Amino acid sequence: MKKTVKLGLIGYGTVGGGVIKIIAGNKRAIEQRVGAPVEVAAVCDLNPVAVTGVDYTRDYREVIARDDIDIIIELIGGYEPARTVILSALRAGKNVVTANKAVLATYWDEIFSAARAKERLVYFEASVGGAIPVIQGLNEGMAANRIAKISGILNGTTNYILTEMTQKNVSFAAALKAAQRSGFAEADPSFDIDGVDTANKLAILSSLAWSSWVKVSDVSTAGIASVAAQDVFFARKLGYVIKLIGSATMESGGLELSVQPCLIPERHPFATVEREYNAVSIRGDASGEIMFYGKGAGSLPAASAVVSDIISLARQVTSGTAGKEPYITYNSSKKLKILPSAKAQGSYYLRFTALDQSGVLSKVSGILGKHNVSIASVYQQESLSGARKGVPIIILTHRVRQGNLRAALQLIDRHPFIKAPTVAFKVKA
Amino acid sequence: MKKTVKLGLIGYGTVGGGVIKIIAGNKRAIEQRVGAPVEVAAVCDLNPVAVTGVDYTRDYREVIARDDIDIIIELIGGYEPARTVILSALRAGKNVVTANKAVLATYWDEIFSAARAKERLVYFEASVGGAIPVIQGLNEGMAANRIAKISGILNGTTNYILTEMTQKNVSFAAALKAAQRSGFAEADPSFDIDGVDTANKLAILSSLAWSSWVKVSDVSTAGIASVAAQDVFFARKLGYVIKLIGSATMESGGLELSVQPCLIPERHPFATVEREYNAVSIRGDASGEIMFYGKGAGSLPAASAVVSDIISLARQVTSGTAGKEPYITYNSSKKLKILPSAKAQGSYYLRFTALDQSGVLSKVSGILGKHNVSIASVYQQESLSGARKGVPIIILTHRVRQGNLRAALQLIDRHPFIKAPTVAFKVKA
Repeated sequence: MKKTVKLGLIGYGTVGGGVIKIIAGNKRAIEQRVGAPVEVAAVCDLNPVAVTGVDYTRDYREVIARDDIDIIIELIGGYEPARTVILSALRAGKNVVTANKAVLATYWDEIFSAARAKERLVYFEASVGGAIPVIQGLNEGMAANRIAKISGILNGTTNYILTEMTQKNVSFAAALKAAQRSGFAEADPSFDIDGVDTANKLAILSSLAWSSWVKVSDVSTAGIASVAAQDVFFARKLGYVIKLIGSATMESGGLELSVQPCLIPERHPFATVEREYNAVSIRGDASGEIMFYGKGAGSLPAASAVVSDIISLARQVTSGTAGKEPYITYNSSKKLKILPSAKAQGSYYLRFTALDQSGVLSKVSGILGKHNVSIASVYQQESLSGARKGVPIIILTHRVRQGNLRAALQLIDRHPFIKAPTVAFKVKA
Repeated sequence: MKKTVKLGLIGYGTVGGGVIKIIAGNKRAIEQRVGAPVEVAAVCDLNPVAVTGVDYTRDYREVIARDDIDIIIELIGGYEPARTVILSALRAGKNVVTANKAVLATYWDEIFSAARAKERLVYFEASVGGAIPVIQGLNEGMAANRIAKISGILNGTTNYILTEMTQKNVSFAAALKAAQRSGFAEADPSFDIDGVDTANKLAILSSLAWSSWVKVSDVSTAGIASVAAQDVFFARKLGYVIKLIGSATMESGGLELSVQPCLIPERHPFATVEREYNAVSIRGDASGEIMFYGKGAGSLPAASAVVSDIISLARQVTSGTAGKEPYITYNSSKKLKILPSAKAQGSYYLRFTALDQSGVLSKVSGILGKHNVSIASVYQQESLSGARKGVPIIILTHRVRQGNLRAALQLIDRHPFIKAPTVAFKVKA
């Protein structure tokens, strides 16, 4: 039997606990796959951790300094000291597994340049889509393809909230509270609900797909706080479900990157992706569309991805091959052209809140028309008692330029018969 | 730049053509991923093939004998000479890519024992699910997991036919003809429609998941020829879609393996998998359920999987690491216990064709009851003019033992008031 592969686990939270559990529980199967035993030799956390046979320290430098440790598992989250842990582990000649989307998306160039320089590997399956092997699927399983488009439901918290709103017909605020009670939203949920988490994951997938660092700031990002119970209601009436979609499309004018609430047709595979589940669809020139679906959050699902990375790395450590070839293709000098969001095109769902008086629809449609926003259908609800606060008018547009639509809505919203800012969500074809 | 990785392509049909096309079209991207140029050096086929810069031969032994060729791509299909090509390529020290499910499922032990003995690799992503990277996802992306269950829509031809029947309300025979016209069914479609192709793919996935050779003969297999237009109609009325499902479940009594038409709830992700698309769902103990979806057939989708395998192998050839560790975990001495199909459990859709006379339902339900088949609901259509040929009675059962159900149906079908063999399809929970 070959030499035991030793791991140093830095950050012992819910995912770290899952990693320890899987490695202990599936010990023999893992050993068989790797061709050598795999064990966690040291754990670092600010709070004391008692795991039998595992050294504990508060100082991550002690773990990285150990010669007998082959692979560092970074599960701290956040930017620092996570970034320093990864970089100093690589400098010390270790391979790295991380679940940290924020640090990867933000320091892609620094991390993968260091990995290449040191001939070491950074694996990061758990950073996107929890248990779903989408990083590997894109990086290896679809390696033969030129990627045309990536889109996905990439955040469990927002999907949980939108599912709750859809199924129970409740407000965003009530659904957020339910998600917090169930442990699917944090006390400060802004990173999730503002779409930033999704933007980080989209940046990672895009950097991988197009072999060039796509930055989070390149992603036009909107969250779900603007989704009202009535939007969920009207969407359903029209045959749609609202989901927060991260999307990257290679257009002739450049790469279009957005995170935004979208109306998904009820027959689309994304429509049945509920609660903490995630789904990612990737279109390759040869493969056509491939979709991956599974649990995007939770201790064991995320740990499943981390341990699968550990197994891949440990096999390479055991056979002495780790880092001979870089894991990902990354060209630091390749600059992708990013399409400005004003030039992005799409069909839209618009909800106007207008006084129930004659001529309103004609004025609204006139302004839209002048901006080349062509109307596909109009849905106007019966006038309600609260008509002084405005009644909803729903318009679905044909394919329009986002810049034109924004200009039109700005003009429309200035009119006194409009009683609340107009809501606009993209409709997925 | 490192030495060119050279390929020998044996069998130049639709998939082979796709492989040549992708390697030529995405040449630079592939070279970047591999770290060396990749080229097809020789093609073998019974019919002459003219590709610029590629040697042609009718004799596969010439290709295998070439020292400059690193990887053999077996795309002949069928059992022989495909098996001999793979085994002699391994013996000659080549790595192998194959899309051949029949040869893999049938000679799993022989092929992977030879690969291990020769320290060479056999990759086979295209053998299951066309472009979908499910082999890799199961073998590597879910490596941390104990697999509890695999189920999937694994055959494009039958799914095309069932989609046609569902969407156009036509008979099996008419839908088969439409599939043949569109190139999605062969002139002799029995390998597909009898479920044998699905059983082969299920055997491959199961052998991989449980590290032991699962044979095609272990799979209880039924095809789709028994699905009538009225079954599609009644299923829809009850909120289901009929799909041919291959399923492997690790039960306490052993591994349950079946291929059979199943009723899928309309909200289940499989329900929206249409035409030549495939989907595979795999449940791991840590990951939970993960689903993969994409094109299961076609020249470029299959070639996408083949070329992705070529890239993975070529990277290992280039870095001199190919075969240091086996690709899959296979334990030739491990014997899995297979659950006899009579002991398998499930809920069922039953369609009786009975004379429209009083007492029939009471007799049928009496026999079912005596065999512990408990009825969940009954759906009886209004009596039609053709009542002498029998009218359909639909019964959905609670969870029953398949052996009990079979015994009950055998008794029931002997009664003179039953005018046609009773149809029984499993209902997916």
